[in-house]
Amino acid sequence: MKIGVVGLGSMGYGIAASLLRAGHAVCGADVNPDAVARLRGAGAVPEDMAEAAAGLDALAIVVLNASQVEAVLFGPQGLAPLLSKGAVVICCVTVAPDFSRAMAARCDALGLHYLDAPISGGSVKAATGKLAIMASGTPAAFAAARPMLEACAEKVFALGDAAGAGSAMKAVNQMLAGIHIAAMAEAVTFGMTQGIPPETFLQVIPDCAGTSWMLENRAPHIVAGDYTPHSAVDIWPKDLGIVLDAARAARFAAPLTAAALQQFIAASGSGLGRQDDAAVAKVYARNAGLTLPGDA
Amino acid sequence: MKIGVVGLGSMGYGIAASLLRAGHAVCGADVNPDAVARLRGAGAVPEDMAEAAAGLDALAIVVLNASQVEAVLFGPQGLAPLLSKGAVVICCVTVAPDFSRAMAARCDALGLHYLDAPISGGSVKAATGKLAIMASGTPAAFAAARPMLEACAEKVFALGDAAGAGSAMKAVNQMLAGIHIAAMAEAVTFGMTQGIPPETFLQVIPDCAGTSWMLENRAPHIVAGDYTPHSAVDIWPKDLGIVLDAARAARFAAPLTAAALQQFIAASGSGLGRQDDAAVAKVYARNAGLTLPGDA
Repeated sequence: MKIGVVGLGSMGYGIAASLLRAGHAVCGADVNPDAVARLRGAGAVPEDMAEAAAGLDALAIVVLNASQVEAVLFGPQGLAPLLSKGAVVICCVTVAPDFSRAMAARCDALGLHYLDAPISGGSVKAATGKLAIMASGTPAAFAAARPMLEACAEKVFALGDAAGAGSAMKAVNQMLAGIHIAAMAEAVTFGMTQGIPPETFLQVIPDCAGTSWMLENRAPHIVAGDYTPHSAVDIWPKDLGIVLDAARAARFAAPLTAAALQQFIAASGSGLGRQDDAAVAKVYARNAGLTLPGDA
Repeated sequence: MKIGVVGLGSMGYGIAASLLRAGHAVCGADVNPDAVARLRGAGAVPEDMAEAAAGLDALAIVVLNASQVEAVLFGPQGLAPLLSKGAVVICCVTVAPDFSRAMAARCDALGLHYLDAPISGGSVKAATGKLAIMASGTPAAFAAARPMLEACAEKVFALGDAAGAGSAMKAVNQMLAGIHIAAMAEAVTFGMTQGIPPETFLQVIPDCAGTSWMLENRAPHIVAGDYTPHSAVDIWPKDLGIVLDAARAARFAAPLTAAALQQFIAASGSGLGRQDDAAVAKVYARNAGLTLPGDA
């Protein structure tokens, strides 16, 4: 298989590296030329994506948001018209279910398959080919995407034969993940007001009913005072915004999601947008006059 | 050891049964005479607690709330004045840290030890002697309580040498647990608006970053449409109330906890207080015109 990967951030680079390891020919593209050069050093073909497009069996898109997906496929230098009929577009980006359906329809009109395939698991699982992929699309799209899925995912959830269902499940997952990060931050800092140091919190809560995947993954960043971004604060205004837009359109009231979003917006607005998302704890700490580990 | 257990609900009965299994002499008391009779059938001594009190080495309190704890120890038929000096009171109830400190001081004045020892893990772990206990108290209180802790707990977190710290950690745990139950309910029902059946939610999310201990424990109740109370809705207005009272006193803003509390209050106010706490999903479903599994 010859597979293009557009977007070589921590997730996209991991996917491209997993595809190389599985023996596929890989072409990478990114606005950052260093990322492209690094991938070529790891074995990717030295072609520009526009030149390579007609020869691709699959194009994986791992950019930041919906407007970038639309630009990659249908912008002035869009790749969709350059792909050969029967190629599959695999969109790994967290987008609204309606957007996913629209992209699938436009690809279908060009004779392209489209797999709605948002990913979960973080950069470490991306690098090791152990992502969870929440996928939906036609049986033909699944068949065309199978080599990519097998190289990159530990679990592939097949959620139906139409684009949109994968993005809907990703929205549900992000709703929970965002709430759980903010809840962890709320609980760590509340504990500090009650005389519980963050390291004691981390020793106890993972063994109790109050734990979550996100808590166990992110609370260590607070204890270490290390906000190197594994996943940045600014992801959450975007992802929880997608969730709440879809919820409002369905006339669904989501008060915990709304409260969590406000905390991430406050974190972003106070200059923490590019820090690790555990930095939402700094909003709570500042509001309560607390000093987190690593703070002066 | 001779140990009294006051409060023979699902948690207290499990503790009493674990103590019997460990070979201790156990005396049980409850407002429900059937629970006392059942425990005697399992081997407990056939004494009234007031008669037994002077001979007890330890008194474990597993009632519902702070006012019941105060009544058990210092009410008109309070047991504290009847216990022998050097006995230990082990309070397993979720109460405010300040209340715990007050009870410890009053017990100390009578020559009694006091262990602030809230429990976590649910009725199954109580029955099998595998609770997590978040304990604080003097070294003498820990030493006196050790046989009870060993019989009932898989994990004992020693959180300091003064009452209050155990209750503070329990408050932190309950804050997270309550938010996570409401978040699970919010996400299951939001997913339904996006075409995701609850059973599909349950197949996917436990393998993704959005999972939590509470989600994995409670979402199956929604999928099954079974609201037999393992832990009732009405626990949460109490426990999150304790959390938010302590937070307000510390001038700590806890917006996710506040939002979760409102959902549990709405569940209780709409007549669901005695159902399993997963029934908070019914508030979301009703507000969005959704039909949950098991509903007509």
